[in-house]
Amino acid sequence: MALIFHERVGLEGRRISPFSWRIRYAFAHKGLQPTVVPTRFADVERIRALSGQHFVPIIEHDDVVVHDSWSIACYLEDRFPDSPSLFGGPAGRGAARLVNIWSDTVLGPAMRPLVYADFIRCIDPDDRAYFRGSREAQLGVTLEQFSADPAAAQPELARACAPLERTLSEQAFIAGAAPAYVDYIVFSVFQWARVGAPRDVLDGAIGMDATRAWRERMVGLHEDLGNRFALYPMESA
Amino acid sequence: MALIFHERVGLEGRRISPFSWRIRYAFAHKGLQPTVVPTRFADVERIRALSGQHFVPIIEHDDVVVHDSWSIACYLEDRFPDSPSLFGGPAGRGAARLVNIWSDTVLGPAMRPLVYADFIRCIDPDDRAYFRGSREAQLGVTLEQFSADPAAAQPELARACAPLERTLSEQAFIAGAAPAYVDYIVFSVFQWARVGAPRDVLDGAIGMDATRAWRERMVGLHEDLGNRFALYPMESA
Repeated sequence: MALIFHERVGLEGRRISPFSWRIRYAFAHKGLQPTVVPTRFADVERIRALSGQHFVPIIEHDDVVVHDSWSIACYLEDRFPDSPSLFGGPAGRGAARLVNIWSDTVLGPAMRPLVYADFIRCIDPDDRAYFRGSREAQLGVTLEQFSADPAAAQPELARACAPLERTLSEQAFIAGAAPAYVDYIVFSVFQWARVGAPRDVLDGAIGMDATRAWRERMVGLHEDLGNRFALYPMESA
Repeated sequence: MALIFHERVGLEGRRISPFSWRIRYAFAHKGLQPTVVPTRFADVERIRALSGQHFVPIIEHDDVVVHDSWSIACYLEDRFPDSPSLFGGPAGRGAARLVNIWSDTVLGPAMRPLVYADFIRCIDPDDRAYFRGSREAQLGVTLEQFSADPAAAQPELARACAPLERTLSEQAFIAGAAPAYVDYIVFSVFQWARVGAPRDVLDGAIGMDATRAWRERMVGLHEDLGNRFALYPMESA
């Protein structure tokens, strides 16, 4: 059986994509060890030829190619039913889809102003022009302008996180007593910030203790998976 | 076996509480038929004597008294394991808790300005002074002032609903192909608005078609449960 994971990488092998992180955790959860193909933004033509679109992660399983992190998680769940479940059944999968969309459309955008201006240093130098150009076109301002007011961004992030914080003050993981894919989704956004910014995005945030403690538990899962790759550049890049 | 459901009621038996609605749906989902004790705000002393606090719904099961809708749902799930599951397992329960908190702290507050000024007419006349006094103390303005700008409130509601709308454009229910408690939670807030306001809170909302269609499916469940009680007062009250 061939199982291949095309995973986004940045500067010196850093793992810089929340979408790739959640799939990395999903593989670990299921005890699967795919062959990893590190993929830079510059590899877009290879990715397009493989999958007909330009986003990563992508997996190949024998002759099947699957892109989009949600589709990949569902594929792994359905094709590897005998390994630990990512969703805990259909109802868990359904609700995880809502959390996935919330995470990508509410949590992620609230975190970006605290990360973007620093994040570009985590990207391979040859990929930076692409990243800056595509993001600045979306934002309508420079990355530095977008990240210029962390004092305004921090309360927005805390507000977005409020339901998460309250949930995690009651239970160890979003999925309850044990982690599941719904945790990997949300954690991947925090992990993106751990990799992509020199300061903790929760630094100075009031009333986020449960989220902080959960994030540490998530980092430590699967043999300290969250620390397996380099975090923010310490050297000048 | 004695199973008793203390359920919030308003004017002429209207069911006016989102928290009671989600438990009414939970009972129907599990095929349980409790004895219903209609409970007005004025019944607070009875409720306090029974449960040590003043919120409804409350259930009694033989000698056990449970208050708080989430605790009640968990109790029913655990004590009636042979009837259809409300959560579909531990991971579904965990994620449902996050959706519950999101629903009560993000969705509900976004809907209130579109409902509150009208809602008071759905309450028993003798309960209205209590409702107005307690809510206006929380809000710091009158109900009418709070509801004075629906044109501003509607986009806020649509924004809060955006992750829900996108989820429901992909799957029939929040829990996936079939409804579960996570649907009852979120629907109960919409049902509260159906009972509590003369106009559809989604009227004029752009891009909410999937949520609208889901709401209709939810109304129709369990033998048209969402239409079993009177909706907004048609007579002058």
